[in-house]
Amino acid sequence: MSNKMWGGRFGESPDAIMEEINVSIDVDQHLYAQDIAASKAHAAMLAAQGIITANDAKNITSGLDTILSEIGKGAFSFKRALEDIHMNVESRLGELIGPAAGRLHTARSRNDQVATDFRLYVRDVIDDIDRALAAFQRALVDRAIEHADTVMPGFTHLQTAQPVTFGHHLLAYTEMASRDRGRFADARKRLNESPLGAAALAGTSFPIDRHATARTLGFDRPMANSLDAVSDRDFVLEALSASAIAAVHLSRFAEEIVIWTSPLVGLVRLSDKFTTGSSIMPQKRNPDAAELVRAKTGRVIGSLNALLIVMKGLPLAYQKDMQEDKEGAMEAFAALSLAIRAMTGMTLDLVPEEARMKVAAGEGYATATDLADWLVRTLKMPFREAHHVTGRIVAKASEQGIALHKVPLGDMQAIEPKITEGVFDVLSVQASVDSRTSYGGTAPANVRAQAQEWLKRLEKEQNSG
Amino acid sequence: MSNKMWGGRFGESPDAIMEEINVSIDVDQHLYAQDIAASKAHAAMLAAQGIITANDAKNITSGLDTILSEIGKGAFSFKRALEDIHMNVESRLGELIGPAAGRLHTARSRNDQVATDFRLYVRDVIDDIDRALAAFQRALVDRAIEHADTVMPGFTHLQTAQPVTFGHHLLAYTEMASRDRGRFADARKRLNESPLGAAALAGTSFPIDRHATARTLGFDRPMANSLDAVSDRDFVLEALSASAIAAVHLSRFAEEIVIWTSPLVGLVRLSDKFTTGSSIMPQKRNPDAAELVRAKTGRVIGSLNALLIVMKGLPLAYQKDMQEDKEGAMEAFAALSLAIRAMTGMTLDLVPEEARMKVAAGEGYATATDLADWLVRTLKMPFREAHHVTGRIVAKASEQGIALHKVPLGDMQAIEPKITEGVFDVLSVQASVDSRTSYGGTAPANVRAQAQEWLKRLEKEQNSG
Amino acid sequence: MSNKMWGGRFGESPDAIMEEINVSIDVDQHLYAQDIAASKAHAAMLAAQGIITANDAKNITSGLDTILSEIGKGAFSFKRALEDIHMNVESRLGELIGPAAGRLHTARSRNDQVATDFRLYVRDVIDDIDRALAAFQRALVDRAIEHADTVMPGFTHLQTAQPVTFGHHLLAYTEMASRDRGRFADARKRLNESPLGAAALAGTSFPIDRHATARTLGFDRPMANSLDAVSDRDFVLEALSASAIAAVHLSRFAEEIVIWTSPLVGLVRLSDKFTTGSSIMPQKRNPDAAELVRAKTGRVIGSLNALLIVMKGLPLAYQKDMQEDKEGAMEAFAALSLAIRAMTGMTLDLVPEEARMKVAAGEGYATATDLADWLVRTLKMPFREAHHVTGRIVAKASEQGIALHKVPLGDMQAIEPKITEGVFDVLSVQASVDSRTSYGGTAPANVRAQAQEWLKRLEKEQNSG
Amino acid sequence: MSNKMWGGRFGESPDAIMEEINVSIDVDQHLYAQDIAASKAHAAMLAAQGIITANDAKNITSGLDTILSEIGKGAFSFKRALEDIHMNVESRLGELIGPAAGRLHTARSRNDQVATDFRLYVRDVIDDIDRALAAFQRALVDRAIEHADTVMPGFTHLQTAQPVTFGHHLLAYTEMASRDRGRFADARKRLNESPLGAAALAGTSFPIDRHATARTLGFDRPMANSLDAVSDRDFVLEALSASAIAAVHLSRFAEEIVIWTSPLVGLVRLSDKFTTGSSIMPQKRNPDAAELVRAKTGRVIGSLNALLIVMKGLPLAYQKDMQEDKEGAMEAFAALSLAIRAMTGMTLDLVPEEARMKVAAGEGYATATDLADWLVRTLKMPFREAHHVTGRIVAKASEQGIALHKVPLGDMQAIEPKITEGVFDVLSVQASVDSRTSYGGTAPANVRAQAQEWLKRLEKEQNSG
Repeated sequence: MSNKMWGGRFGESPDAIMEEINVSIDVDQHLYAQDIAASKAHAAMLAAQGIITANDAKNITSGLDTILSEIGKGAFSFKRALEDIHMNVESRLGELIGPAAGRLHTARSRNDQVATDFRLYVRDVIDDIDRALAAFQRALVDRAIEHADTVMPGFTHLQTAQPVTFGHHLLAYTEMASRDRGRFADARKRLNESPLGAAALAGTSFPIDRHATARTLGFDRPMANSLDAVSDRDFVLEALSASAIAAVHLSRFAEEIVIWTSPLVGLVRLSDKFTTGSSIMPQKRNPDAAELVRAKTGRVIGSLNALLIVMKGLPLAYQKDMQEDKEGAMEAFAALSLAIRAMTGMTLDLVPEEARMKVAAGEGYATATDLADWLVRTLKMPFREAHHVTGRIVAKASEQGIALHKVPLGDMQAIEPKITEGVFDVLSVQASVDSRTSYGGTAPANVRAQAQEWLKRLEKEQNSG
Repeated sequence: MSNKMWGGRFGESPDAIMEEINVSIDVDQHLYAQDIAASKAHAAMLAAQGIITANDAKNITSGLDTILSEIGKGAFSFKRALEDIHMNVESRLGELIGPAAGRLHTARSRNDQVATDFRLYVRDVIDDIDRALAAFQRALVDRAIEHADTVMPGFTHLQTAQPVTFGHHLLAYTEMASRDRGRFADARKRLNESPLGAAALAGTSFPIDRHATARTLGFDRPMANSLDAVSDRDFVLEALSASAIAAVHLSRFAEEIVIWTSPLVGLVRLSDKFTTGSSIMPQKRNPDAAELVRAKTGRVIGSLNALLIVMKGLPLAYQKDMQEDKEGAMEAFAALSLAIRAMTGMTLDLVPEEARMKVAAGEGYATATDLADWLVRTLKMPFREAHHVTGRIVAKASEQGIALHKVPLGDMQAIEPKITEGVFDVLSVQASVDSRTSYGGTAPANVRAQAQEWLKRLEKEQNSG
Repeated sequence: MSNKMWGGRFGESPDAIMEEINVSIDVDQHLYAQDIAASKAHAAMLAAQGIITANDAKNITSGLDTILSEIGKGAFSFKRALEDIHMNVESRLGELIGPAAGRLHTARSRNDQVATDFRLYVRDVIDDIDRALAAFQRALVDRAIEHADTVMPGFTHLQTAQPVTFGHHLLAYTEMASRDRGRFADARKRLNESPLGAAALAGTSFPIDRHATARTLGFDRPMANSLDAVSDRDFVLEALSASAIAAVHLSRFAEEIVIWTSPLVGLVRLSDKFTTGSSIMPQKRNPDAAELVRAKTGRVIGSLNALLIVMKGLPLAYQKDMQEDKEGAMEAFAALSLAIRAMTGMTLDLVPEEARMKVAAGEGYATATDLADWLVRTLKMPFREAHHVTGRIVAKASEQGIALHKVPLGDMQAIEPKITEGVFDVLSVQASVDSRTSYGGTAPANVRAQAQEWLKRLEKEQNSG
Repeated sequence: MSNKMWGGRFGESPDAIMEEINVSIDVDQHLYAQDIAASKAHAAMLAAQGIITANDAKNITSGLDTILSEIGKGAFSFKRALEDIHMNVESRLGELIGPAAGRLHTARSRNDQVATDFRLYVRDVIDDIDRALAAFQRALVDRAIEHADTVMPGFTHLQTAQPVTFGHHLLAYTEMASRDRGRFADARKRLNESPLGAAALAGTSFPIDRHATARTLGFDRPMANSLDAVSDRDFVLEALSASAIAAVHLSRFAEEIVIWTSPLVGLVRLSDKFTTGSSIMPQKRNPDAAELVRAKTGRVIGSLNALLIVMKGLPLAYQKDMQEDKEGAMEAFAALSLAIRAMTGMTLDLVPEEARMKVAAGEGYATATDLADWLVRTLKMPFREAHHVTGRIVAKASEQGIALHKVPLGDMQAIEPKITEGVFDVLSVQASVDSRTSYGGTAPANVRAQAQEWLKRLEKEQNSG
């Protein structure tokens, strides 16, 4: 920031400010591979259609390959004066192959070019995130199989509600990740149309073959309307929406890890790999990675919000505002990718404190629902009445300071004479989780079966991917 | 807002505040139809599984039908003391059919019940929005057919760039609406799993049939994990994301209408139906509806943002925070629905000022690209060189204050001797749009063909829907 | 939402949609008191300036008073056909006093009228929120005095770090609320200028006295630029910004209450007044109010975001988009007000579990820093070296499974020979908090003094307010 | 993003991910000057209080100065292994001055250190932005003086409403910028308290003097509560709120420039300095800078939103989430600063098309309100009746296709017999603007006076600043 302006009536040259706000090469150089791929596809199509000669196309392609290699090796010097990645590449191409470079821009414009480049980039991002989410699911499933029988307190309102298994809890995140992957896959399908050949906004009078370039670049088809093709940024918005929802999922797991590893809670431990220690408080394990995963949610939602705001109220077709689509989105995708990988690492690293979990699962009359259900099932009592009877029995237990399965049968019968010895079969934590065999329920057998099914699905996917 | 607190140390009874913040019936009463449908499905399943008797199920069903009718007629008195829609219905059911009402809540909880109700509600919303978007597309397509040949200036940066047709411009919005519908359809598929039977969080020990209730309610299947079933609000977030992107599309069209109907621009007129007039300035037609459509984008994005924030960092399973998922979302869906319908109305209402459009399309050397392309095509000049030659010719025209197609051939040849008479074939506005025959380009024939194809698709959909 | 559109080509009359999107009376009727106050001030000024007669002014005023009373009693029938609060009031005024009603609108327009009304409304809201925040501070300070000596674990990363006092913790929120009040006070000052008399946008040729109406309505001065006066919504945005930050503060306290009342943590209890109980799990106290306070943050931030989006990119002066400034803002202010009052109630209600707090405060070698500081202070060791020595002593204690103040002196001296008996003076939890006497530190004497100072300040304020 | 994870079960070492997510030096190295200033203040205080020796303090200070100079020259190698700016500096200090470096960290922690550093940084940012806004105001005022008499159409709903002056329009933005500066000034005051000495969270047992370090660093006082001191990020949120509102103001002006410079509107021209031209369409001047200013609003609001989300629901005191406070905020501040400077440049650069403005101002019966006001003033007609009569006269003019001041007196008298010749005095555009002399109105004399007052104020400020 400059303070030269004040005093000197605008001491800085306006041209300098214009350049500063206008230049995009710092950001769009990350699109170099996509830009070159699209140019090669375009050149090949121009030659196939007889718009340029085969020789020109050959020289262009070979020049572009040289540039790709130069950038890959860090041997390319990006020039801010050339504004963006497209002009940086075309300018260098001119140095390498001479005037034929000037034929590459036939029947296209920077408007369709940047739309193509960024689509290809976001498509790559989606593929990377999908792989990361698959690895996250695999970690969850492996741990779920390991802990299909590990009983822990199930919470609502962060109050102990009913016992569940740790494996069951982990599989809930597998489901969320599965929906996340579904959203990214749908976004990918909708994204996968080629804007190339829309030219500035109206299409072109050259006999181009947009289907050919689409095919070469792995798009399913060309976009159907040239105005839409250069104006659309839905593909970024949709990928950011999917990212925001995925980030929220991770933030929930992260929050749980922060709470569970608090020494006052102590349900789970993380190793040194995912905590920062303290040389003077050896038991202190700050769950930094989980906190940062939780915080990254802000960045991702903020970027989605930012781009929705940028696009709001923009007339067709290309507006310069749309240049602001990349930086925030790239940061958000990187933040999400990092967060998924960090959460995968923590999933593999965390160690449940099984003894503590079991004790906590049994506290707070967590099996009271099981008692009520027994009354309904066995005595044919309406649920609301069973609920009421249970309340009175638990109150009695609570007065005596004893757990539910320790209440003498006589005391129960004093409240409801029809209760029999059989009731004790449902009052233990283990009985409770074992009984939850309804579809999707927490019974260990259910959990194990479901985890195995996930494992198969993921392995199949991996083998076919 | 109360000011009793100050002075009297907290003059309001805390219980009153608790009730005020806790009660949800003002909002969730809008779920009554869904709540009753879900209860009927649940009761039928309980009877089929032998968990309640056929007679109880019959009475429950009949009682629920009575309540449905009472609410529909406005004859139901919602009680805040009963907190929510579920308890209001169940309490009334008890009045109507006695203790058997207490059997309805067997093997379920409010946690899975509200998740089911709101899924059904959002599913209805999605269906309504899809219908509204289809009608919007139909309006766009009808007008596009009508104006496939109407030439207007195509803009980039709100500067005249190249001539396009008005039909082509309208079809760009048809494409956007098509992607919007795709997003809602995908959201609907992902939403369409039943949480019912997840109970509080862990499933149940009753031998329920979740597939049966899912089927009855039109869900594709039950959700696979009971913890996830009661904790998930992805279905709202995804529908809100799709809404936000759709709202952005509408805001772009709305902005164009506001600009186009400004008397300084004058490309389009709206009738009194969609403007507010002024009794003293008769030509004034404030495009209020378009401005409000543009403004509604704020509400929709704000609601998406709000719910992402609510869900961020919530541990599993149900947290009371999740009660805040409904009000903002309902407002956002209503705002979007209204905006789509208003925009449909304006699409049908607007009248392009064709003469003004044609003149404006030709201003600013908008066919310069056509000249450059002619040089490439006819003289085999590299595009960059053609671009340069064109610049010099336009500069000459500009000095003389004449349009491009008025520059004498000799003047052009002074700059580039190889130019021939044939060049004039491409310099008119009409020739320009006619030449843009590349796939997705603005040529009237293209536009007409594409609009007809859309018409067929929409009519087919309508007949099958 | 209608589905009539599809099929019938737009079955609904466009006029109906226009009315539906355009009407604002459902929302702006909440401004009735402000609208009438502003009209009375305007009429009095018009008479004082000789623009209308004293008699007309008298009739207008008396008619407005009648309307005020009618609305207050619920005896006023708002008509949607009259669009907004201004026309509803003016129309009724005509019924009451005849054609003189038509003189009221001299030298003003709805543009400055609504800007005036909503400023007055937001000013009232700010005053209410300030009172609520003052009551919240008072509750915090009272509890801080009560618990100036109550030792609890101080957390970083939700890990036990160093002992603090509960009073000290509560005073942190007093500070936040103080900044919140400062922000609202600043917003109020900036808001407190009168747009009345800016007319449609350009001012008026009538010899009005804007200073007079400003004075009557309690504004500090008229706004200086008529275009700005009707275009500005900063006053809403700034009040929403202050609200968003305040809501974040409340969400932090709410999160702590949710965690602290979790049975696994157990640092604090809430009574039935602020929890929902369970008839079958008697110890279960769902902290619903705290969860809802936390969730309201979403609504408040969402509304701020929404209005920023609405205002983005609007040309001067009035645009219809600006009609969307009220509904979301009103909801956000109501949500914040409710959240403050609920949090005030919880602050008064909560009971720290002092024994549990004290034990937890001492766990995890939380006084290790005190040992390091002793080494620095007594042995003149550089802090980094002291930090290292402390680490070794704590490691030894940890191996033996004993607390820091239980490590034999000899064991310490084996690591650092210069350590003396005096070290034990700093190793207890009590000694630790007592020693933190630096300005703003947690020592009970500090906390008590600071709380007393706050109490004086709040009482003085109350007496003068 | 890595794809190694998939397939190899988590091929990347978790430690690497932890470092990647945890490291902050890439961002917080921008705080180096503030970090060193705070350390010097701390060292001087420690010596003054006898906590370290004068000699140690001298060495520390001299070492820190060396480091400051090394970083300033780019001769400092930041190490990611040292995580953050604090450890990078302390580690280098150890190399330079030996073990005495270890005494610097006495009685502080990274928690209060980073809070201090970032406060100082944001304070600098606020000062820079204030200077930029002052320069923007100066540019607006200079142009307003120049164009106090330049008549242009005043718009509502982008429809011509009443004539205003261009100077008046510019001064509206001066007012907005003034409120922006007020908000930043208020934020600065609230920010300007020192967290230094709060240590980790509880204060310290060392006899430090927090008032002294506060003074040295230009803070008004130390923060009063150590827990709050390390937990608070209000100062960033408030500066971001002020930034968001300021960005919205700029976006409105930017939108106007985009519309006004559109060839169809043509009210204003920008030079090549703030447009990108086209070599083939010489009259094309894409207003890229204005579009980018408009787009930056997204980034700024997005960053505010992101940090509100990060802070939502964080328990006290320091949480690692808070490390995410810097990057987005820094980007937002930079975006705003750039946008202000670009807008200042455009303000100085733009040239109103005065002839076009004048003609447009007179179109659309823009002086109809003047006619109505004349009827009220001269004939004592109630405004509503005058409004009606005016409507009929304008309708007549409109039928005849003539401007209002061209309607024959007889035609007017046919509608309202009492109209006299005098009416023509108010019907011209010039008469209209001249008559708007109410406070804040658009009359050239008003505008000139107000602009001069602003000029004086700004010059006085500059001389005293």
